[in-house]
Amino acid sequence: MSDSSASQALIEVIDHDASIREIRLARPPANAINPQLVASLNAALDQAVSDKMAGVIMTGAPGLFSAGLDVPELLTLDETGMRAFWSDFFALLKRVAQYPMPLVAGLTGHSPAGGTVIALFADYRIQARGPYQLGLNEVQVGLVVPPVIHQALVRLIGAYRAERHLVAGQMISVDQAQAIGLVDEVVDPDQVIPRALEWLKTHLQMPRKALLTTRAICRAELAQGFDAPGAMDLDRFVEGWFSDETQKTMQALVARLQKG
Amino acid sequence: MSDSSASQALIEVIDHDASIREIRLARPPANAINPQLVASLNAALDQAVSDKMAGVIMTGAPGLFSAGLDVPELLTLDETGMRAFWSDFFALLKRVAQYPMPLVAGLTGHSPAGGTVIALFADYRIQARGPYQLGLNEVQVGLVVPPVIHQALVRLIGAYRAERHLVAGQMISVDQAQAIGLVDEVVDPDQVIPRALEWLKTHLQMPRKALLTTRAICRAELAQGFDAPGAMDLDRFVEGWFSDETQKTMQALVARLQKG
Amino acid sequence: MSDSSASQALIEVIDHDASIREIRLARPPANAINPQLVASLNAALDQAVSDKMAGVIMTGAPGLFSAGLDVPELLTLDETGMRAFWSDFFALLKRVAQYPMPLVAGLTGHSPAGGTVIALFADYRIQARGPYQLGLNEVQVGLVVPPVIHQALVRLIGAYRAERHLVAGQMISVDQAQAIGLVDEVVDPDQVIPRALEWLKTHLQMPRKALLTTRAICRAELAQGFDAPGAMDLDRFVEGWFSDETQKTMQALVARLQKG
Repeated sequence: MSDSSASQALIEVIDHDASIREIRLARPPANAINPQLVASLNAALDQAVSDKMAGVIMTGAPGLFSAGLDVPELLTLDETGMRAFWSDFFALLKRVAQYPMPLVAGLTGHSPAGGTVIALFADYRIQARGPYQLGLNEVQVGLVVPPVIHQALVRLIGAYRAERHLVAGQMISVDQAQAIGLVDEVVDPDQVIPRALEWLKTHLQMPRKALLTTRAICRAELAQGFDAPGAMDLDRFVEGWFSDETQKTMQALVARLQKG
Repeated sequence: MSDSSASQALIEVIDHDASIREIRLARPPANAINPQLVASLNAALDQAVSDKMAGVIMTGAPGLFSAGLDVPELLTLDETGMRAFWSDFFALLKRVAQYPMPLVAGLTGHSPAGGTVIALFADYRIQARGPYQLGLNEVQVGLVVPPVIHQALVRLIGAYRAERHLVAGQMISVDQAQAIGLVDEVVDPDQVIPRALEWLKTHLQMPRKALLTTRAICRAELAQGFDAPGAMDLDRFVEGWFSDETQKTMQALVARLQKG
Repeated sequence: MSDSSASQALIEVIDHDASIREIRLARPPANAINPQLVASLNAALDQAVSDKMAGVIMTGAPGLFSAGLDVPELLTLDETGMRAFWSDFFALLKRVAQYPMPLVAGLTGHSPAGGTVIALFADYRIQARGPYQLGLNEVQVGLVVPPVIHQALVRLIGAYRAERHLVAGQMISVDQAQAIGLVDEVVDPDQVIPRALEWLKTHLQMPRKALLTTRAICRAELAQGFDAPGAMDLDRFVEGWFSDETQKTMQALVARLQKG
């Protein structure tokens, strides 16, 4: 993380009080997840721990939490670059899953694919009401979500709903996301941050040690998923990424994005 | 399966297009599951793989998917015959659970006990609307559902709902089945097959490798249940089948069926 | 259990017929759980097995199933006393989880914390309608629910709902409890025992061996949780109990109780 000061330009940090910090994705126009944004998020999450915060909110821009992986940029990476990116993204998910304090995902708008993935590992998900799309639509672009992400989805919404959602490969609406349990609350866009603050404050007034120990017991399976041998399965992901089917599907996607 | 050509008389095979095959149970009057029907289904499922189909729909007659096990016929089997039947039925369930392409259960009417059991292992369950009964009512006839079937139910509807449903030993209505998640959709009877086709087509237009790999990850637990040591627990099932309580209960059932 | 005759004064035993026994907590004013009540319940549950009952209902007083642990009394115990209490309470939960016949929790009113904990391990929970409070609010008083109780909650309401409920540390209303699946039915207070009887009778008319074997398969995970090494984790619980945070929180609670 030698470039952490540079990369932190891609996020904004707002301390709402001495104990609650907001980490806001700030990589216009779409908060697309590229190597620098991942490095920036990893550094900011570590910084909040060093700074002895008690709770964290992760948010995006109004109307857009994150468009997911920055496919056009990632398609320019060679295998070494892609392995490094995926390892760092995986480290980000692990950091969120094993985070030592409550972390709320404030989904301020659209949050498909990679955006949803990050939120899966947070403690709580508050979604802005509106015509936004989210969900794990990886199959549609030829990608396979690794087992550790599948398991996080199973934990959140159940094994069978997870199967139907992942295999369908579709983005879903805010209402559908709430119906299947992918988000916990849907609130007016300007209420996402206030509600996240309120949720955190209610929890943070509990006896601290009992709260954190109970939270750790409840999240043990989520956290330990990353420590299992083969959890990342980097070889399979990279092999899939560079496969003909996936490359063609993603290049067609990028062509459509550049036209539209 | 040397008798597969003969046994295939008990099913009808309809290719809806070059990639989607319907396998229709056709053993009047009740599609009751006997050794020949099981052999026939096993053979038809294998044939669809050999014929490189992309998706399969399993259906029954209008108003009746299957009445479940053919208890009157099975009661005539000695222990050797019953062991052979149960092994083949178990192989059928394993085949459905580990099937290499999406398989929709089109529940065209009543589908109690064994009929529900087969459907548990499919990808998706579309039930005909109407005064039909389904559910795992085995306890009522003195039978114990093996752990691998219990686990499939847990995966579909959750551990506690599975306990309540199995222990109650009752058939349930179409609406109750949908409410607890035992079926995915309830549609007018003449829409079962069209909806199954639509569901399959939507899924089959996804990038093929990503779809099948994701599906395999999501269904890994279901598929692996059959490979666990002791998964079938044949001795216990056969012992239970020939126990006094079970034999008396089933003979009373058959006597009622023959009267009514 | 040398004092079982004395301790049984804290419960009432009502046989509704030759096969169904009600075990009623009777330690006024709040059915608070102290060492004697635990001993009494353990003895009464064993007695119902010895007496070859077929089903059991556990109830409390009108308006109050149990206020949970008797914190004021337990705070007077030294470490040896607390270890003995916790071992016996744990043995009670294990007995309920591994009980050889159906056991319905008839939640006749308030049932917070320890009251809810006992009910988690029963077969079925019928809650009196009214302004009652229940739920696992241990975090609020500085306590950490051990993993075996967490697992029972996960089994009942799912992993994520269990996390939200436990970490929040709040009591919830009867309606909220039903909405998240913490209780199965909400009925008028005078219907709690009649409904429990009806539920038991419906189940007890099933073929006995099939019922009990199926029930055992469905509850295997719940029952086996207590046999895992370290399931009780007595050292951690006792250490937590005597920690500064927990002692201070509980003493403040007791002070409030004595004022109010």
